[in-house]
Amino acid sequence: MASIVVLYNHPADPAAFDAYYTETHVPIAKKIPGLLSYEISKGGVVTPEGASPYHMVATLKFATMADIQAAFASPEGQAASADLANFATGGAALLIFDETPL
Amino acid sequence: MASIVVLYNHPADPAAFDAYYTETHVPIAKKIPGLLSYEISKGGVVTPEGASPYHMVATLKFATMADIQAAFASPEGQAASADLANFATGGAALLIFDETPL
Repeated sequence: MASIVVLYNHPADPAAFDAYYTETHVPIAKKIPGLLSYEISKGGVVTPEGASPYHMVATLKFATMADIQAAFASPEGQAASADLANFATGGAALLIFDETPL
Repeated sequence: MASIVVLYNHPADPAAFDAYYTETHVPIAKKIPGLLSYEISKGGVVTPEGASPYHMVATLKFATMADIQAAFASPEGQAASADLANFATGGAALLIFDETPL
């Protein structure tokens, strides 16, 4: 499996972020071709010391890194990427990697 | 499910990091009580723009946030946390969150 992990920094208006994410972004992101699973954090993101810089973490799984490349190149992937500017007011980092179970 | 995501910054000596991680840290971390699955990135961590600040991402899954709290409090969890100083020369961020599938 290969993953896209999206680290969303704390937005200016968390309630507005959450509403937009659920109502608008999720339906857009779910159309990304090759998407096998999609999970988001609920109830906050913390560290062992307490607060983290992140409001939310989203994890999108694909079969292979090639599938992720194809997803980014697709119109649906480009729509999902472009939509970030509409709600991720604190910024977001996307991490992409292949994974192996231990 | 609840996750610990460990973001390892680029270490001073990547080959030494990788060898220590595989040979020493994984056996220690696998003893953490309540650990249901354990995956690591392979082949690097990138962003859509190219390089990322991270050498490796590890994802450890537990049934609940309470299980993660118990894991951190356990001798095995404390041993795994303490071991980070032995190889994570670039530093590491631990993110802890409950997850919901979409």
